Amino acid sequence: MSIQVKPTYEPLNEQTVLDVVKPLDFFDAVEQKSLLVKEIGDGNLNLVFHIEDPSSNKALIVKQALPYAKVVGESWPLTLDRARIESEALLREAESVPHLVPKVYYSDSTLAVTVMEDLSDHVILRKGLIEGQTYPNLAEDIGTFTAKTAFYSSDFYLHPFEKKEQVGRFSNPELCKITEDLVFTDPFFNHDTNDFPAELQNEVEKIWNDKELLREVAQLRYAFLTKAEILLHGDLHSGSIFVKHDSTKVIDPEFAFYGPAGFDIAHFIANLALNHLSQNAHAKEPFNRESLQTYLLQTIEKTWNTYSETFTQLWNEKATDPFAKTEGVLENFLQKTFQEAIGYAGCEIIRRTIGLAHVADLDSIPQKEVELFYKKKALELGSALIKNQEKITNIKELTDWIRGA
Amino acid sequence: MSIQVKPTYEPLNEQTVLDVVKPLDFFDAVEQKSLLVKEIGDGNLNLVFHIEDPSSNKALIVKQALPYAKVVGESWPLTLDRARIESEALLREAESVPHLVPKVYYSDSTLAVTVMEDLSDHVILRKGLIEGQTYPNLAEDIGTFTAKTAFYSSDFYLHPFEKKEQVGRFSNPELCKITEDLVFTDPFFNHDTNDFPAELQNEVEKIWNDKELLREVAQLRYAFLTKAEILLHGDLHSGSIFVKHDSTKVIDPEFAFYGPAGFDIAHFIANLALNHLSQNAHAKEPFNRESLQTYLLQTIEKTWNTYSETFTQLWNEKATDPFAKTEGVLENFLQKTFQEAIGYAGCEIIRRTIGLAHVADLDSIPQKEVELFYKKKALELGSALIKNQEKITNIKELTDWIRGA
Repeated sequence: MSIQVKPTYEPLNEQTVLDVVKPLDFFDAVEQKSLLVKEIGDGNLNLVFHIEDPSSNKALIVKQALPYAKVVGESWPLTLDRARIESEALLREAESVPHLVPKVYYSDSTLAVTVMEDLSDHVILRKGLIEGQTYPNLAEDIGTFTAKTAFYSSDFYLHPFEKKEQVGRFSNPELCKITEDLVFTDPFFNHDTNDFPAELQNEVEKIWNDKELLREVAQLRYAFLTKAEILLHGDLHSGSIFVKHDSTKVIDPEFAFYGPAGFDIAHFIANLALNHLSQNAHAKEPFNRESLQTYLLQTIEKTWNTYSETFTQLWNEKATDPFAKTEGVLENFLQKTFQEAIGYAGCEIIRRTIGLAHVADLDSIPQKEVELFYKKKALELGSALIKNQEKITNIKELTDWIRGA
Repeated sequence: MSIQVKPTYEPLNEQTVLDVVKPLDFFDAVEQKSLLVKEIGDGNLNLVFHIEDPSSNKALIVKQALPYAKVVGESWPLTLDRARIESEALLREAESVPHLVPKVYYSDSTLAVTVMEDLSDHVILRKGLIEGQTYPNLAEDIGTFTAKTAFYSSDFYLHPFEKKEQVGRFSNPELCKITEDLVFTDPFFNHDTNDFPAELQNEVEKIWNDKELLREVAQLRYAFLTKAEILLHGDLHSGSIFVKHDSTKVIDPEFAFYGPAGFDIAHFIANLALNHLSQNAHAKEPFNRESLQTYLLQTIEKTWNTYSETFTQLWNEKATDPFAKTEGVLENFLQKTFQEAIGYAGCEIIRRTIGLAHVADLDSIPQKEVELFYKKKALELGSALIKNQEKITNIKELTDWIRGA
């Protein structure tokens, strides 16, 4: 198989993308004659092409990073290296959870291109949840994903030389900076990237003036900057997960880097908590609402329990750390990770409510005053989680807080 | 100035070292004719040449890394990259504390060579302290060194892109592994690198069986592996410090890497604490002993206070961290660093007593039973510090523990 790629970067279009795809031998000679190409991305950060042979229904996705990001109408330059990070993270994840990530068929760092499995039969988890769907495997799949990608990338398992080599390979300063600013900084100060209705001004100022809260956020932010524990997905919200009834696929790891162990699972939990809150407005009937919300809380609990059990099993079977057999060392790690996750979940809930990037769960609530009501609840929940990291000691207590919000 | 270096690595000798030195324009044409060359290293890890023009007394040092380490008669390969790390760390340190490190005149990473200031008029601090010398500037100098090198390499000051670039540049897996093994692992298990007299077997087994202690060591070790806070010297014991009455020079940063903020100052304190203990045997007269020990404890206290005050001043004047002005954030950092330092000091005290690399302070005690007595005291002190990290909340309480040992 000979791959002919362009020697320099240029954005692909519906014609040139075929020059990338055809040499891959994914489509045979007959199929190649009738390929349908559709650009399906939103064009803000990446081009995404869906390429299909309509007779065989065989299809794949070509994702190409654009050298800029468009947010609120503004454009700023953004490293193409994120395409390399994304494809390397997908390959790395596939070593331990091949069934939970899209297959990578090809990647080219000059073109900033990843060619991967078509998942058009899946929907984005956020959309499914807002519509009231439930996914029975979700908790088990995300608990497994976070536990396995954590353990196998950690110092508990890897030789320190390999771990340090991986830390360097996944150094991701530009995308980390986006998180540093949009998650951990701007929402906690009067910054012009923030986005919230005037009616929330009082509640937002309460956050800006809450010294105890800010001290905790400062520590969480500092840990994000300094703690290189595990290879994170880096952006594991419900928009980065594709689902269908019996399948879960974690996509878009362009924010991947070595960071604090509690970060990914926190983002997943926070986004389920936001959906849980929004179901008070979305769910059509009380019975429906109650069963949906029960499902969401059970999913949070089962995700943590699966994470914890899977990590424990890997630890017992495969840890190379000399202290792995010392009583309490694993328990300390899980407890610290849990507490940190509560804090990170709180930050995510706050920034998704008043920061630059919102979630449709809350923003799509039809009546303005209902939306405001639940956004206030979200801010209270986020603040409470951050300030009670040490008091919330198990997953049931966490779901109690979310239920009570 | 044209530098003619050999294209590949080979160990220098008293002739070939002149090929490195002569093109540097350090010695003029006349001086170059009468240079005296002496190899003064111990040959275990590095070649060290002292090159002097006897008429002018101008001199410099050429240090060349050897591609192996010799310890207890065994040889194992060791990366030459440590010479690059050392010279880059010296240059980096010189940006904030030029008066506290040897000047670097030239470096060559292929030859693994650093040409630097001659400090023959200084003595190694450990030697001076064992002989009962005191150095009035020591605390202020080391407090300043640790505070400035910490602050200027941290996320509190650097742009995250530069910080992450520095983390990559100072990735130092091979030398970190030596610390991971010899400081944090082997002494806490029955490992053949350990070295202690049979009379200590009971005390050593007590350490190996102390689960509470091992859990704390596991956490300190994990932080060493994962927390990339500041550019550390990485080996700041009293053998890495050159002194004369009014001058302090921190040398040999070949272990430099980004690690936990409390690590360097902990090693300095631990080595003073070991000297403090050994003065019970070394000091000739009670009065002499008392004043020496008072000096050592005051030096520990003043070092921490200088560190803390210098760091605070830099923070107030130059921190770029968005939470720098939030009440309590600096205090949290200093408190965490202090507690962590107590733990690291405990590990250093233990490993210098029963691990592979000992300190002359204890090993040179002439009477065997006196040596054993103070080695037991050292093990008790080290264990107590590790287990009381959270209870010891200020520097006076720490020196009380050391005084009481």
